[in-house]
Amino acid sequence: METSGKIIRCKAAICWEPNKPLSIEEVEVAPPKAHEVRIKILATGVCRTDEHVIKGEISGVIYPVILGHEGTGIVESVGEGVIGIKTGDKVIPLPVPQCGVCKNCKNPKNNLCIRNDAPSFSGLMGDGTTRFTCKGKMVHNFVCTSTFTEYTVVDESAVAIVDASAPADKACLLGCGFSTGYGCAVKTAKVEPGSSCAVFGLGGVGLSAIIGCKVSGATRIIGIDNNKDKFSKAKEMGATECINPNDYTKPIHEVLRDLTDGGVDYSFECIGKADLMVTALLSCQPGHGTCVIAGMAPPGELLSFDPMIILSGRKLTGSFVGGWKLKDSIPQLVSDYMAKKFDLGGLVTHTLPFEKVNEAFELLCSGESIRTVLLF
Amino acid sequence: METSGKIIRCKAAICWEPNKPLSIEEVEVAPPKAHEVRIKILATGVCRTDEHVIKGEISGVIYPVILGHEGTGIVESVGEGVIGIKTGDKVIPLPVPQCGVCKNCKNPKNNLCIRNDAPSFSGLMGDGTTRFTCKGKMVHNFVCTSTFTEYTVVDESAVAIVDASAPADKACLLGCGFSTGYGCAVKTAKVEPGSSCAVFGLGGVGLSAIIGCKVSGATRIIGIDNNKDKFSKAKEMGATECINPNDYTKPIHEVLRDLTDGGVDYSFECIGKADLMVTALLSCQPGHGTCVIAGMAPPGELLSFDPMIILSGRKLTGSFVGGWKLKDSIPQLVSDYMAKKFDLGGLVTHTLPFEKVNEAFELLCSGESIRTVLLF
Repeated sequence: METSGKIIRCKAAICWEPNKPLSIEEVEVAPPKAHEVRIKILATGVCRTDEHVIKGEISGVIYPVILGHEGTGIVESVGEGVIGIKTGDKVIPLPVPQCGVCKNCKNPKNNLCIRNDAPSFSGLMGDGTTRFTCKGKMVHNFVCTSTFTEYTVVDESAVAIVDASAPADKACLLGCGFSTGYGCAVKTAKVEPGSSCAVFGLGGVGLSAIIGCKVSGATRIIGIDNNKDKFSKAKEMGATECINPNDYTKPIHEVLRDLTDGGVDYSFECIGKADLMVTALLSCQPGHGTCVIAGMAPPGELLSFDPMIILSGRKLTGSFVGGWKLKDSIPQLVSDYMAKKFDLGGLVTHTLPFEKVNEAFELLCSGESIRTVLLF
Repeated sequence: METSGKIIRCKAAICWEPNKPLSIEEVEVAPPKAHEVRIKILATGVCRTDEHVIKGEISGVIYPVILGHEGTGIVESVGEGVIGIKTGDKVIPLPVPQCGVCKNCKNPKNNLCIRNDAPSFSGLMGDGTTRFTCKGKMVHNFVCTSTFTEYTVVDESAVAIVDASAPADKACLLGCGFSTGYGCAVKTAKVEPGSSCAVFGLGGVGLSAIIGCKVSGATRIIGIDNNKDKFSKAKEMGATECINPNDYTKPIHEVLRDLTDGGVDYSFECIGKADLMVTALLSCQPGHGTCVIAGMAPPGELLSFDPMIILSGRKLTGSFVGGWKLKDSIPQLVSDYMAKKFDLGGLVTHTLPFEKVNEAFELLCSGESIRTVLLF
């Protein structure tokens, strides 16, 4: 059946309002307008950021909204003027686009394309509308992607074409979580061989940071989590040791300093708690230690610390989607995965049919899953 | 008169207790012990850090103490085992030593030699004593240097030999203030040609940061100070424009964002106020902007800000004495000065005889001077 140019009726998980389970509904997905791409989603990861929206913890998001931002799909059709993307391409939608022409895209050090919707969470396409309708109501999209739906429409700047043979249920993780954690280490921190690293939080992003540290040749990779059930997986991914702050009376940064003769070369905060960010900063070496923040703290939490911690030569830096320009980098990351530079399978603890999306969030919140991948 | 091996009686400015003028006294300067060097001071700069100690604002400093840490001198004699430094060498004492053998010295990215006295302010030589006595009392040294005295004794790790023809009254600034500000830009931030920069505070360190930005090829260098009398000097040093926060109702980071299409590439906090550090951080571009902290905030002041400022891809970094390994770098910086890569003369607004040290602090506190150099 030819669907190009027509409205597609399909299933999507709608977040009607905060603190309610997602609701699987029939939605209408309009055809792509100029410079847009309609994608049939094959698989999507379930990420903590989606859960923040469900809990109403991200200010600015407008409901109803179709969440999900970590997907793999096949291009169903393209709008007018789209060059270089065609029906049938295997793609990953990009939560941070790369238009290639704005001042940030032109700056080799900056990956915050001005089309990035994260600062405002408008949930709209470039023309100020969306392509989703449900029960006669416009439904917003989420960070330029929306993957909790059988079909989505995204701007051409928010699409990376990847190896057609890449397995959809693994490659989807490259859309956000893996790229963020891995990029923290290899792109933002640029961890050198022989370095010592501490990774706070052993969820999907933290484990990906561990993988990045290992690929970079770090010789000491210390995983930190309150849940010791995460330790075996962390060691499997490359952690050389794991510690649980609950096992110590000393503050954990002091424990880490004792373990590493004054502090680690690199620390990574992969949870999103302001006080833990300070701990991560205190855990790294005066004079050269770098602390990378990858977690998003709840609104209102402040980072607060003695400026001498910085003046004595430490660095504090953020890593937004791992510092990658995603349209350029994701195809290469997929190739690296296909070449077995790193494994993604270990991060996927659960696979469920798309309809069980709420179950996936329960697994996330209980700490049982690292990543659940939903299949369509 | 041969002084080697003998106690030298000479004049020094003693800080007997906080919040009192320095007192010019006759002191006894013991001969250098093994691996120590006795230096006849020719000139010394008067720095804000010395003033912080006079005001009792740096915790840990033990009184009485001989301040001053930005000097030029001639080696009078050396202790046993000193290799590569000899009587008659022109030298700059180093407020942060470089022993060359500790783990930080061996790390190319770290300049915090473990012999650095700044974290503890012990005011003692390696053997736990000092070489200064006044009225029968031991007098402490200050950050491995003490230059408010006709003669001082320092560890060999805290001595850089410089070009014998370098003018003492300019080269002394390389011991701290100039190297700190200049290094912020060229060494810590590594400002690239074409960058936009904002420098908060137009004192000695701030002006030196401006010089560093200019030498690095920054095309826009915005100086910020509440005292507009500093603007003409800042422009002479390389600022392309200067702004006074008092002239605006908007917060100054918003003014800077408006001026620079979203923020500068690099910002430098050269005063030492925690709230201004946050302003400097907010003034730089999301996605890649770097804020360098060079000023030392008073004890108890906290840096406090929304972690999203960092997560969105900004960097916050400290620059301790400009990030230089001083023993290696100061000889080269002196050569660069002699080759006219930058000017130091513009930073020296006043020259006074050593005895007028208290007048130099009055000039500093009134905002009249950039740097006063005391001559012996």
